[in-house]
Amino acid sequence: MTLPLYRDPAAPVPDRVRDLLGRMTLAEKVGQVNQRMYGWDAYERAGDGHRLTDAFRAEVAAFDGMGALYGLQRADAWSGVGFADGLDARDGARTAAAVQRYVMDHTRLGIPVLLVEEMPHGHQALDGTVLPVNLAVGATWDPDLYADAVAGAAAELRARGAHIALVSALDLVRDPRWGRSEECFSEDPYLAARMTEALVEGARRAGVAVVLKHFAGQGATVGGRNSAATELGPRELHEVHLAAARAGVAAGAAGVMAAYNEFDGLPCVANRYLLTDLLRTEWGFEGVVMADGTAVDRLVRLTGDPVSAGALALDAGCDLSLWDASFTRLGEAVERGLVSESALDAAVARVLTLKFRLGLFEQPLPPARSETVELPDPAELGERIARASVTLLAHEGGVLPLSRAVRRIAVLGPNADSVAQQIGDYTAPQRPGGGITVLEGIRAAVAAGTEVVHDRGCALVGDDVSGVPAAVALAAGSDVAVLVLGGSSARSPDTVFDANGAAVTGTGTPSGMTCGEGVDLADLALPPGQRALLTAVSATGTPVVVVLVQGRPHALTELDAPAAAVLSAWYPGPRGGRAVAEVLFGDAEPRGRLPVSVPRSAAQLPVYYNGKDHRYRGYADQSAGPLHAFGHGLSYTSVVYGAPRLSQARVGTRAPRLTCRVTVRNTGSRPAEETVQLYVRRLSGGSSWPRVRELRGFVRLTIAPGEEAEAVFEVDRDTLASVGRDLRLAVEPGLVELETGPASDRTTGVRLEITDSESNAT
Amino acid sequence: MTLPLYRDPAAPVPDRVRDLLGRMTLAEKVGQVNQRMYGWDAYERAGDGHRLTDAFRAEVAAFDGMGALYGLQRADAWSGVGFADGLDARDGARTAAAVQRYVMDHTRLGIPVLLVEEMPHGHQALDGTVLPVNLAVGATWDPDLYADAVAGAAAELRARGAHIALVSALDLVRDPRWGRSEECFSEDPYLAARMTEALVEGARRAGVAVVLKHFAGQGATVGGRNSAATELGPRELHEVHLAAARAGVAAGAAGVMAAYNEFDGLPCVANRYLLTDLLRTEWGFEGVVMADGTAVDRLVRLTGDPVSAGALALDAGCDLSLWDASFTRLGEAVERGLVSESALDAAVARVLTLKFRLGLFEQPLPPARSETVELPDPAELGERIARASVTLLAHEGGVLPLSRAVRRIAVLGPNADSVAQQIGDYTAPQRPGGGITVLEGIRAAVAAGTEVVHDRGCALVGDDVSGVPAAVALAAGSDVAVLVLGGSSARSPDTVFDANGAAVTGTGTPSGMTCGEGVDLADLALPPGQRALLTAVSATGTPVVVVLVQGRPHALTELDAPAAAVLSAWYPGPRGGRAVAEVLFGDAEPRGRLPVSVPRSAAQLPVYYNGKDHRYRGYADQSAGPLHAFGHGLSYTSVVYGAPRLSQARVGTRAPRLTCRVTVRNTGSRPAEETVQLYVRRLSGGSSWPRVRELRGFVRLTIAPGEEAEAVFEVDRDTLASVGRDLRLAVEPGLVELETGPASDRTTGVRLEITDSESNAT
Repeated sequence: MTLPLYRDPAAPVPDRVRDLLGRMTLAEKVGQVNQRMYGWDAYERAGDGHRLTDAFRAEVAAFDGMGALYGLQRADAWSGVGFADGLDARDGARTAAAVQRYVMDHTRLGIPVLLVEEMPHGHQALDGTVLPVNLAVGATWDPDLYADAVAGAAAELRARGAHIALVSALDLVRDPRWGRSEECFSEDPYLAARMTEALVEGARRAGVAVVLKHFAGQGATVGGRNSAATELGPRELHEVHLAAARAGVAAGAAGVMAAYNEFDGLPCVANRYLLTDLLRTEWGFEGVVMADGTAVDRLVRLTGDPVSAGALALDAGCDLSLWDASFTRLGEAVERGLVSESALDAAVARVLTLKFRLGLFEQPLPPARSETVELPDPAELGERIARASVTLLAHEGGVLPLSRAVRRIAVLGPNADSVAQQIGDYTAPQRPGGGITVLEGIRAAVAAGTEVVHDRGCALVGDDVSGVPAAVALAAGSDVAVLVLGGSSARSPDTVFDANGAAVTGTGTPSGMTCGEGVDLADLALPPGQRALLTAVSATGTPVVVVLVQGRPHALTELDAPAAAVLSAWYPGPRGGRAVAEVLFGDAEPRGRLPVSVPRSAAQLPVYYNGKDHRYRGYADQSAGPLHAFGHGLSYTSVVYGAPRLSQARVGTRAPRLTCRVTVRNTGSRPAEETVQLYVRRLSGGSSWPRVRELRGFVRLTIAPGEEAEAVFEVDRDTLASVGRDLRLAVEPGLVELETGPASDRTTGVRLEITDSESNAT
Repeated sequence: MTLPLYRDPAAPVPDRVRDLLGRMTLAEKVGQVNQRMYGWDAYERAGDGHRLTDAFRAEVAAFDGMGALYGLQRADAWSGVGFADGLDARDGARTAAAVQRYVMDHTRLGIPVLLVEEMPHGHQALDGTVLPVNLAVGATWDPDLYADAVAGAAAELRARGAHIALVSALDLVRDPRWGRSEECFSEDPYLAARMTEALVEGARRAGVAVVLKHFAGQGATVGGRNSAATELGPRELHEVHLAAARAGVAAGAAGVMAAYNEFDGLPCVANRYLLTDLLRTEWGFEGVVMADGTAVDRLVRLTGDPVSAGALALDAGCDLSLWDASFTRLGEAVERGLVSESALDAAVARVLTLKFRLGLFEQPLPPARSETVELPDPAELGERIARASVTLLAHEGGVLPLSRAVRRIAVLGPNADSVAQQIGDYTAPQRPGGGITVLEGIRAAVAAGTEVVHDRGCALVGDDVSGVPAAVALAAGSDVAVLVLGGSSARSPDTVFDANGAAVTGTGTPSGMTCGEGVDLADLALPPGQRALLTAVSATGTPVVVVLVQGRPHALTELDAPAAAVLSAWYPGPRGGRAVAEVLFGDAEPRGRLPVSVPRSAAQLPVYYNGKDHRYRGYADQSAGPLHAFGHGLSYTSVVYGAPRLSQARVGTRAPRLTCRVTVRNTGSRPAEETVQLYVRRLSGGSSWPRVRELRGFVRLTIAPGEEAEAVFEVDRDTLASVGRDLRLAVEPGLVELETGPASDRTTGVRLEITDSESNAT
């Protein structure tokens, strides 16, 4: 008996796919494009371990196979999985193996199942390492560091038998009212694109494929409202919202997730232009398009019935659904002629291709420990990200770095001592002692003689000021007060364990979410209680350092005056408190740079730096500009930037290639950790109205006191390209300015003429 | 010597145009598409009258002709024209005649000049009647009344020799931060379309042609920022922003003004899709496209040089420019091959066609008094609009209508006694005594024994509360306090005249603009001083009636509790104070209905009622819904609406025709002035994601106490049509609900099935 062709590892993947597809029934095909079950419904606790459920076996039987299984390892309040019943690392791998064996052994064709997991910032599983949120990653401007951390996190996921990591990467913070701002790298397409490339590359090192969330434009929904409509034109879409996806696809992403939001009336999962014409035909993408959870079922509002909804999504270009009922009925859709079987075949082929390419047929089971790649510790890398992301927004009077000679430090505020509140959304419950809060970080950092006192002062949300006097009393007797304010995406309080090691919830820091999926804010100011605490504490005369633990840029106008320094630590991850303390005491330099503009108020939105250049003079009652500009971030030293210098003053539109250099001198007495930024500003000649400026490069420099260094930017087609009338990227003739500087509002420019010629000569 | 063909009134207009065009030089053609000069630079005072200036003669000589002259009669702070040097009605007509005679006598071909005037809400000229602003017009839901008022205002304009009225009609209030919200009829396309039709029809009665401002989408600029980018997709554009233009074109508008804003990267004046493909090819528009002031010159930012900018605008479809330097250089553009002479010919032909159609060659001079149509008094009609626009937003405890038995009324607030602050933007200076403020209206309305006391209490803007105690003292001793708050678009204080009749400015009500062109607001709450005044006055225990004189919907959350009643009087025009008083005392019923949603705060924008239906559950910190819904407006009686009844439950997509009826009963003791509203809500089957609901009809009913009346809506293709995937309007099969009710948030629906069939039978 010979092996069927599709089981021959030596055969080319397209041949194996064709062979296998030819053997499949309509029902088996439908099974391969579905990912209907919640992974946590596939197992149940049995004694010390876990066993597969009847529901799982029924699901496999329904279509004699299973395309993918989502979130087998996922643990959080939403899935209801905690330490009591969930999978730890070892049992996770065992259960994954059991799932895989069952599917292969109990189906006619024995096609392995794709195991898909959430890895928004670390694997969302019990004992998975939590990294700082993407917005913190964006603040590092350090894609290499991020790639390393992703590799470490992905290795954890791979060790538990999973193949696919779902990661938010494509959304941009265009409206910080959106609760998922924390999941975005930036408001800027270029910075997000560099991080998306790093993500795909890092995961690949661990043998994990990435599905990029969300395609497309979800960061621009109306009013910052989750899953609402995205109203923007095709050019805006191409200029701003597609760059990260294009970069991720070019880097080899296995898939993209079609988003909930609609574009100009058509939900992304039903948008054939996005999913097929653009993604496949124009970009040549060969991976899978996964629909966001139940996004296909939502189409029933359009089609009136689920069978047509599934057909509409399949026809638009969705290959793999998530939790939908409608997509399980594609067999009926084919039989009723609502969609062709060849469209279904194409989707099945893409799912099978991914399985072949990932080696599922050859190695369906979790790798043995000896087989996994040795990768750096993600927890340590997460801490490096946290350290690199701390962004010094304002600093007057030299209170920082804190002196170790201080007698007493008051660490106050609702975010001072909660691991749950510093790790962000899409995180599993944390074991006790695994984190370091800001309070703990400071306690560990101070000199032996320094007293550290603490009070929360107020709740995270609301206007209750009853706790303020106690905090004020502590501040009044201290040399400095560190006020840890901001937001929280914690869906449950810090887990506290009883004497027997059982988790007791509700006794830790009370919850109160202001951020995270489904938690959008209208008003971006800090809640009244926090503002009252700041006002009262600063009135003591004790210097106040505000540390913002947050998943979005809050409107901070009222912090400027009372605080001697304001830092954003974003959600720095479980051990982020140490990173914050290191920066406060100057053991590390503050080197974060804003990946988003910080608004003055929600009333002045939008404030992103790269809007169209209409030279608006401002609202009658307030500026239209941000409080702190994109790219901004102070340091403990002082630097002087020279003017940018070009290797030539004129280039042709074909294959332009030149160099832009700028010298930066450290004029202070501490090391400079600079992120030198390159922007392009079009003065004339583009086919559409120019933006104020657009980030097109950045270089990190470390400069010793008194020294200078040069940042060198290679300027080429990618640097100079803009979106033409045909929506393709091209270098358009005209006049541009190349600008360099430490932030988007402190640049110096040099003109470059782009001529409509073949030649690159001057 | 025979008359040239173009001078033969009996010849068909196309033949006359062809003949004339054939005789013209390139320079003469360029002259016909330009409208470069400010009208007020064309004349200067000479003794008791005015004479033409050298600058005017030079302008005519430059191209041996003049296409159009803008704003000869315009007077306001921007033009710098006031009573001292401007044109009154009689001298205006004389000067128009002199202009016309000069152009005809001193040019080779003797082509008359189009005289173009601003008529945003009445002719913006000295002694021109000011009507309430468009937002007040929208609140009346009474297109017939508006058409009458426009006819009266246009007759004034025509009597002064002008031909073309520029009127804002096409912009929608999608973001009330925009300072030009007052110039919009509504946030809703249907209501705006009905008013636009009325506008065109009313002006036609007076022999005036209308150019509709602005095409297109200017009400949706980013952040409500004037002239900023409009970021929306083609479907949103068609579903929301084009309805008024489509209706105005169908009604016979002579022109549309291409707007400043860009659409997805391309400014409207350079947007060939909008100005040519859509407007001319699809809609069959044969009128002129006028560019907004200097909008073509702004294109230099794209093209790099003015000659190319003019060519770009001409090629896109602009026929007539306004103030641009670049459009005067179209001769060079043709000679350099940047645009074809045939494109120029087409634009010239359209300008000439308009001149022939308006009879300029036969009657170039202002009509004699005997020739003008007898039309109703616009001032009286303006007052009727003001009366019909007063919208009762909130009312608790029955304080209204005010009893004439009251002993003392305190009329307080910065908008209580200023004509300038109640007339809105784009208005000429007012002569003293020509207006009636709210204070004056109340004084005239009270019984003989009632004392009326007044204090401003605070300035319009700012947080100075020094005047509050005096106002509080007056309120404390009164039976009721009428607090007149809101905004102002007054560019200069009320004009006060000295003993010799000379105008003395700066001694009237101090200015402080919060609205009008170029005066956008971020925060939509009333200014702090006004809020403090309200709080302090309401603390006296005296019942407080808040009257809002405003050009936009302010965020009013904080008014709800302290005020016994809140009315919006919009900018009711110079005599609007009487209308307000009549409603307050119940001499007229409050019958205004909101043409816009009233937000709770700027932080929750947008709040328009007809967004996409994504069933958003709200922000974590506040509702996403408005404080008062579109269509809302209370009355002094009570009414009960029945459920809508359809003449059939099912229709075909071709030529659907049915009737929807709803019965309304007046259950109170005063007359009901109801505006019964019909909305369509799509449940399934459309080609794009449905909106929450869409206004598709309204009927005004007057019902005596205890009586009932029936509103009858003819439901047809226009009612049921939606924008299909091809962006054309079509009736799409599926399920809809027809909803009737007194406001967009208080509707009752009945289902209608639309089947994909020829038949209209059930």
